[in-house]
Amino acid sequence: MLQLINDYIASLPLEKEPRGLYEPIRYALELGGKRIRPQLLLMTYEMFGGNPKDVLQQAAALEMYHNFTLLHDDVMDRSELRRGKPTVHTKWNDNTAILAGDNMLCMSMQMISSATKNNADILSTVSQTAIEINEGQQMDMDFEERLDVTVEEYIEMIRLKTSVLLAAATKVGALLADASKEDAEHLYRFGEAMGLAFQLQDDYLDVYGDPAVFGKKIGGDILNNKKTYLLIYAMRHGRTPARASLERWINVNNIDPDEKVAAVTAIYNKVGADKAARARMLEYYAQALQHLDEVSVSEERKQPLRDYAARMMKRER
Amino acid sequence: MLQLINDYIASLPLEKEPRGLYEPIRYALELGGKRIRPQLLLMTYEMFGGNPKDVLQQAAALEMYHNFTLLHDDVMDRSELRRGKPTVHTKWNDNTAILAGDNMLCMSMQMISSATKNNADILSTVSQTAIEINEGQQMDMDFEERLDVTVEEYIEMIRLKTSVLLAAATKVGALLADASKEDAEHLYRFGEAMGLAFQLQDDYLDVYGDPAVFGKKIGGDILNNKKTYLLIYAMRHGRTPARASLERWINVNNIDPDEKVAAVTAIYNKVGADKAARARMLEYYAQALQHLDEVSVSEERKQPLRDYAARMMKRER
Repeated sequence: MLQLINDYIASLPLEKEPRGLYEPIRYALELGGKRIRPQLLLMTYEMFGGNPKDVLQQAAALEMYHNFTLLHDDVMDRSELRRGKPTVHTKWNDNTAILAGDNMLCMSMQMISSATKNNADILSTVSQTAIEINEGQQMDMDFEERLDVTVEEYIEMIRLKTSVLLAAATKVGALLADASKEDAEHLYRFGEAMGLAFQLQDDYLDVYGDPAVFGKKIGGDILNNKKTYLLIYAMRHGRTPARASLERWINVNNIDPDEKVAAVTAIYNKVGADKAARARMLEYYAQALQHLDEVSVSEERKQPLRDYAARMMKRER
Repeated sequence: MLQLINDYIASLPLEKEPRGLYEPIRYALELGGKRIRPQLLLMTYEMFGGNPKDVLQQAAALEMYHNFTLLHDDVMDRSELRRGKPTVHTKWNDNTAILAGDNMLCMSMQMISSATKNNADILSTVSQTAIEINEGQQMDMDFEERLDVTVEEYIEMIRLKTSVLLAAATKVGALLADASKEDAEHLYRFGEAMGLAFQLQDDYLDVYGDPAVFGKKIGGDILNNKKTYLLIYAMRHGRTPARASLERWINVNNIDPDEKVAAVTAIYNKVGADKAARARMLEYYAQALQHLDEVSVSEERKQPLRDYAARMMKRER
């Protein structure tokens, strides 16, 4: 499935003029990634008996869309690396990343909008999802200025910023296969819950991952004072001394990075942020599986999606 | 017609959370403007017997889309003012302008995609147009680094950057009214030619406009060394001394602005750039009217669009 997607993306006509617009798009897509969104779309489509090869354009549209968000987010966050390589705005410049991102968004809309079935529903799902993702990104930026973010606000932010696109992927896969409204809705909820579990796991692995397999340096979020589930949970549920200690670590400069990561991790352990994150993650995973149970196809047909979800939960990077 | 559009835009639900995302969108839309694109859509729809009130959402979608391009272009060009007011990235910051622009693009796609007739055609027209506009913007940025831009390259750039959206406006108006493919195509060509005439007039007025009515200071393009039709024509068609003199004026710093505007204008006059621009503009205007002639509705029904085109050509600001 991954091979199908990567071959299709490699075949997109991006050797086009103006080079300054299309070269960064090709670069961004060739950086790779897990291709989760197109895989979810294809697996859902296949679950209803469709041939994945018939909807590769729509699957690739979601990957194109996802990579547009990465280009613009990297500009906004001033991130220099993405998958270990220079980001587009670092390799070229901000203007290039802005315009190439805009064009990826426009291309994704064009690629998604040629379905033979349920075209209007698909487009309304994708454009509504795109709006929600922008809202999630705005919330994420707003949270940087705030110290009083609640766990529920954080969950709503990651739901918008991350989960709704996974939800759209499974729902669009169902709509393309002309599934019933009920099945499409259950698959939306499946993708949404998987997205929440996935993001919580991201937060967890950044601190508790195995350094040998994680792929990035452990503790990056701690060093960047990133408002993850772990930090927000500890700030809201820790006792006063733990919270005060956390605040000191957040505000301290010129400190040994390893020392900061070790100290903050110790606080997370003490207040049980790690256990809370795992518990919440498993809760969403269970919700996702319940929605998958409700879909009106045979268990056998559901197995690939069920296996993929299990692999997502077992991932270590 | 303008009132209808402005009332509809004012009624859009933009008093929403997150405020940091929707407030700049409201600000940008309230800056006003000529609302040319939605007016063209509504007039075309009415020409085929439709009631403009039924397609205000699609008309407003084009204005929303147009304003997205302004937000991002202003970031890329570092423009501080738009319609005499601070641009979004000046009033807020770059990140706000990038994300608010992204959301306007997503909202415009959502607003355009709910037509009851020819929905797939409309969406494919709009997304293809959006891609072309990005290509035009890239060409415009590429031209800044080049001294050898030809007149035909310039025309292709403004066709992509400006004209195709006017063309899409008239074509979508026709598609919404379920007009024939031939009529929709003639209306696309009408809008495209009007767009070219309109942009050439923009270039012309910036130098030859009446200071009392133009609204901006005359000669802004000359002071910014902007590659307009006039400058490119003079660089390609002027004799060697005129070209050398132009190059000196382009490269000179710390010069009295009025002196530079007067000197460059004198060169334009000498090489006939003003007359060439006027002639080209009238040529596109004539082409536009020929395409309007071919549309299969009565002359009477065409009159409003014909009058609007004539007013666009007579405008002094």
